[in-house]
Amino acid sequence: MSRFFSYKYKDLVPYTPGEQPKVLNVTKLNTNECPFPPSEKAMAFAREHLRPLNLYPEIRCIDLRSRLAELHGIDVDSIILGNGSDELLNFSFMAFCDDRKQAAFPSISYGFYPVYADLNHVPYTTIPLRADFTIAPEDYFDLHRTIFIANPNAPTGLALTRSQVEEIVKHNPDSVVVIDEAYVDFGGETCIPLIKDYDNLLVVQTFSKSRSMAGARLGFAAGSKALIADLNAIKYSINPYNVNSMTLAVGLGVLLDEETTKANCRTIMANRAYTTAELQKLGFEVLPSSSNFIFARSEQIGGKELYLKLKERGVLIRHFAQPGIEEWSRITIGTKEQMDIFLKNVREILEERT
Amino acid sequence: MSRFFSYKYKDLVPYTPGEQPKVLNVTKLNTNECPFPPSEKAMAFAREHLRPLNLYPEIRCIDLRSRLAELHGIDVDSIILGNGSDELLNFSFMAFCDDRKQAAFPSISYGFYPVYADLNHVPYTTIPLRADFTIAPEDYFDLHRTIFIANPNAPTGLALTRSQVEEIVKHNPDSVVVIDEAYVDFGGETCIPLIKDYDNLLVVQTFSKSRSMAGARLGFAAGSKALIADLNAIKYSINPYNVNSMTLAVGLGVLLDEETTKANCRTIMANRAYTTAELQKLGFEVLPSSSNFIFARSEQIGGKELYLKLKERGVLIRHFAQPGIEEWSRITIGTKEQMDIFLKNVREILEERT
Repeated sequence: MSRFFSYKYKDLVPYTPGEQPKVLNVTKLNTNECPFPPSEKAMAFAREHLRPLNLYPEIRCIDLRSRLAELHGIDVDSIILGNGSDELLNFSFMAFCDDRKQAAFPSISYGFYPVYADLNHVPYTTIPLRADFTIAPEDYFDLHRTIFIANPNAPTGLALTRSQVEEIVKHNPDSVVVIDEAYVDFGGETCIPLIKDYDNLLVVQTFSKSRSMAGARLGFAAGSKALIADLNAIKYSINPYNVNSMTLAVGLGVLLDEETTKANCRTIMANRAYTTAELQKLGFEVLPSSSNFIFARSEQIGGKELYLKLKERGVLIRHFAQPGIEEWSRITIGTKEQMDIFLKNVREILEERT
Repeated sequence: MSRFFSYKYKDLVPYTPGEQPKVLNVTKLNTNECPFPPSEKAMAFAREHLRPLNLYPEIRCIDLRSRLAELHGIDVDSIILGNGSDELLNFSFMAFCDDRKQAAFPSISYGFYPVYADLNHVPYTTIPLRADFTIAPEDYFDLHRTIFIANPNAPTGLALTRSQVEEIVKHNPDSVVVIDEAYVDFGGETCIPLIKDYDNLLVVQTFSKSRSMAGARLGFAAGSKALIADLNAIKYSINPYNVNSMTLAVGLGVLLDEETTKANCRTIMANRAYTTAELQKLGFEVLPSSSNFIFARSEQIGGKELYLKLKERGVLIRHFAQPGIEEWSRITIGTKEQMDIFLKNVREILEERT
């Protein structure tokens, strides 16, 4: 820290992302990426439709937003794009939270929520999960706070139904409810259709998981035109050209090839069922996941030990040193081949101990 | 604005970017883009070295930062990359300004500085330019404020020498001095060599102008390791993957082809001299520019009228409705062909009036 750093941020504890090794010869199951790159069809479209890079991006991002609007049956002005969904989550903390309107989110959820709250000096409350790690909708009724819920939740993978989310939205008419649907395409139900009926609902999605674009950084938020106008006021006060032309082109290409996205999601869900069953055979408890990762624990080996032993063997998974989930492991679902490498190594690690 | 928008931002007036027409059949001299795309050599490198898009970007951006460090003869940890330099300017307002450490910048300069100050609730002072639009270094001595200076300045195009900037940095040992060098490659002197001697100097550059990458969004800041660590604390609290893999690849490709960048800058400087001389023949006053735009005024036609008449004819330039510069026009320097179209239309507009 320099002697010039503002007192406002001196206590800030930044987010710790999962390891991103430069070398690619590891089995990387730690940051919930899609194991498949964007399709050749999507990339060919992107190459053909790339705006010259020496020009600023088309500032309204109208083509990509129009396609999203069409896919979801909503108005184009109900959509804003972000440089990844993280940027939009931060915009939401900026726009809809302050010392008067505080924040609330589950005690175990995406680790960036408390960072965004602290960054923006927003006091927050965390709501405990139930003993089975599920979110109890009624715990979120009448909170008079801006609510952030990852659905499916991370790192548990457990999902609320759309009607459960609707109950939360209904019971907080004076507060924005932000539903972070990063993982919704792997078995969850999107709440985007509800934005027409509730002016206090904002749904955030990312292209990093089901749409194979973690490296391209693209997210979007959907909500009433007024909520989106608020987020645009923030965006135009920071970085009007927040999404670059290459990302816009690839994003549109991917959205024009929904068949590939759906096929990839089906493959990952099948690999998830397979990995879950194999881990259960080894005595693991595995939560029923609606996402592209599973959350699992074994009586035979601690979470940190499993993480470290797998890492030694070139297999990266994610471990959280957070009370309540220290014994658990979050394992991204990759290809069948990747999951077999993971399972083989888990079996060997367990055998070594006996 | 929604009923949920935070009171903190209710008075925020976002930045107004120059027009970005979706249609490309205009002569676009309004947002200081480079008229030449990245070279085929740079793009071929980028295609060959693109990290798979389904993976998150290499988080340390080590290859691109190492190349910048090498080019400027500084340490790699003295460099941070941004999603355009705008993002880094906002990080600088966040990190180095607050209600106790206020901001100062020229009264006529990049229009985003007051927006960043307001966004971050930073009180600020503007320092008037001299009557000839130059910045007087001594006006910036001992301000006890975080100082932001665009050098060359926008929209005037006038530059301070490195030793003038050094005097300002020396006379503000308790304050960060941010030098925004967006336009430095068109005849200015970079202050990056000074960061080794002054822990209070931060230099910000962009790839949007001389490096043909406005559409790819890439900027960087150079300063002491401690200043850069502060900016990284902010970055890791908002969006750790702020620069995407495609931009990293193209950026490195462009930096490996410095010959093209230098040749492009020489061409633009030649076109600038030509356009300046032609406008002077038409009676325009033109400030001596060290950037890829010129700032000009005519006694024969008002700034707003010239802007509107050129727009009718498919030529976009930039007009600022700001007291003191309302009669002036900012004209981006493009190709010789673009400048001839511009000049032909200016001649015709002036002739119509007589």
